[in-house]
Amino acid sequence: MAAWSERRLIEKIQKASSGSKRGLLKSIGDDCCEVVASGSFLISTDSLVDGIHFNRLFHPAHLLGRKSVAVNLSDIAAMGGRPRFILLSLCLPVDIQWEWISNWLDGVLEILDEYDCVLIGGDTVQAKELVLTVTVLGEPLETGAIYRNTAEVGDTVWVSGPLGSAGCGLKLLMEQLETGKKITSKGADILLAAHLNPRPQIELGLQLAGSGMVTAMQDISDGIATDLAHICKASVVSATILEASLPFSPELIPAAATLETAREDFILRAGEDYELVFTVKHGAETDFRNRLEGYADTLVKIGEIRSGKGLFLQKDDGTTKEISFQGYEH
Amino acid sequence: MAAWSERRLIEKIQKASSGSKRGLLKSIGDDCCEVVASGSFLISTDSLVDGIHFNRLFHPAHLLGRKSVAVNLSDIAAMGGRPRFILLSLCLPVDIQWEWISNWLDGVLEILDEYDCVLIGGDTVQAKELVLTVTVLGEPLETGAIYRNTAEVGDTVWVSGPLGSAGCGLKLLMEQLETGKKITSKGADILLAAHLNPRPQIELGLQLAGSGMVTAMQDISDGIATDLAHICKASVVSATILEASLPFSPELIPAAATLETAREDFILRAGEDYELVFTVKHGAETDFRNRLEGYADTLVKIGEIRSGKGLFLQKDDGTTKEISFQGYEH
Repeated sequence: MAAWSERRLIEKIQKASSGSKRGLLKSIGDDCCEVVASGSFLISTDSLVDGIHFNRLFHPAHLLGRKSVAVNLSDIAAMGGRPRFILLSLCLPVDIQWEWISNWLDGVLEILDEYDCVLIGGDTVQAKELVLTVTVLGEPLETGAIYRNTAEVGDTVWVSGPLGSAGCGLKLLMEQLETGKKITSKGADILLAAHLNPRPQIELGLQLAGSGMVTAMQDISDGIATDLAHICKASVVSATILEASLPFSPELIPAAATLETAREDFILRAGEDYELVFTVKHGAETDFRNRLEGYADTLVKIGEIRSGKGLFLQKDDGTTKEISFQGYEH
Repeated sequence: MAAWSERRLIEKIQKASSGSKRGLLKSIGDDCCEVVASGSFLISTDSLVDGIHFNRLFHPAHLLGRKSVAVNLSDIAAMGGRPRFILLSLCLPVDIQWEWISNWLDGVLEILDEYDCVLIGGDTVQAKELVLTVTVLGEPLETGAIYRNTAEVGDTVWVSGPLGSAGCGLKLLMEQLETGKKITSKGADILLAAHLNPRPQIELGLQLAGSGMVTAMQDISDGIATDLAHICKASVVSATILEASLPFSPELIPAAATLETAREDFILRAGEDYELVFTVKHGAETDFRNRLEGYADTLVKIGEIRSGKGLFLQKDDGTTKEISFQGYEH
């Protein structure tokens, strides 16, 4: 990276981090930053590698900045926490354009502002390859964070919204890139946005954790088949989900047809929807529906936790098959 | 990275992080880890890029593992804190040897154990280039962290030990690599070790912070000329240091002669000694010496904080020159 742009980048970051922020005792410009802690911190870190986790040919820098943060905020949402602080560790190749990195950072700062989260520090190094690493610190509710390993037999399994949109959106973007033709299937924009600009379910995660009825939770980053299997494995239980109950966007139907891909592939196995999958305590379903009434349109019960091991899909024809660990492995 | 080694690496990390550790509520294996917080956290992150920040041709993996952590612990030492938790974000090329990464991780775990610090999470991605990012969380004493921007006119300036050893050691290692001949100047091993396996000044940092007499502090990562200038700039003061007072190892004399390099270049401008530079409250020198008696052999007063701007070196011949910002810029 040219020295001028490294200096400009650091100046831009320092400017964004200046001023007093709740809980921030010392910002960028010392050996460490210092944040006030109360109770506990939830911490997650994710590295995005150019050409593996994102494609600059179709991902606008500004939206990628938003997404770089969103995928980490989603980890906080999955524990029922509130994001507070982030650090950036950037590997920047010497030929990266100032405009690109500046737009990327604007996206980062925009989403941080929306979630009342503050950039507190990080590191920037020159490297051969563009790698964007975000570390987030969040706080759980006083009632505690929700883990993966606490689902119990008899709990019901739920998801927070449509599945497969982001994976289908990604395939549409790749198809457009390869063919050079814009895909015009009805509502395709909704699917593209699901990949390019996912929304972390922070407010819902807090509501779910605060309900006292959610027993286990995680976000859907690798596809429901993989992510629900994580809950099952950690909790030493099995789950059976009903194919007919799995929610998806109506836009998925024409898009999957255009892409000549089975809809099921997107719904079960595509990642990056950043919806939440969670379990609700046995017998609490009615209370839960009442408590989460505001989310009645999007929360969907998809199955049940059982004893044993594995994740099973009960098909519309009544047959059942094992589907554990079939999602994308990043 | 071959899938087998990624799995082996994660298994090794999980094994090292298993079991109950003080303050760790949730370790690797969920969307986030969760740590108990009390008071505040000091946080620092550093990325080391292969071929820029280290050289695998002469840096044994095990010692590099130790150093990858040590440079971050040094940031905690510089605030007068105690390290508690670390996260690793690793960019690993596909051709990295399992033996190398396993030895590196052994070095990481060894130094963590020595400082009662715990690996709590991270991320591993396949990339073109080896980049090792460590994030550390530490806790300051109840009396508070020591910042850079709080030095005052009349304070005395001190360093915690010899300067220039690591820089000279690095140059010896590069010379050996280029010429293929082992350097045999007396005590060269001490200089090589200063580069390969630096020791973070955690216990001293805590003693200094606890004394109540240290007004500003930072670690010497880029050379005293650069690092003391940071304190001056942040505190809006100047400093004058005496050339004759600057401590260095006796081994530096023959090694600098062998390398045909001015000793001053190493002492003032070479980085990575990871000693501490700090200021002691005006008039407190006697009390300070009594309080830090155990460190009498290594703590050295090198100068004084004055009004104005800049960093000045008073030479043995009585002349003074400005030396701000002449260290390595990483």
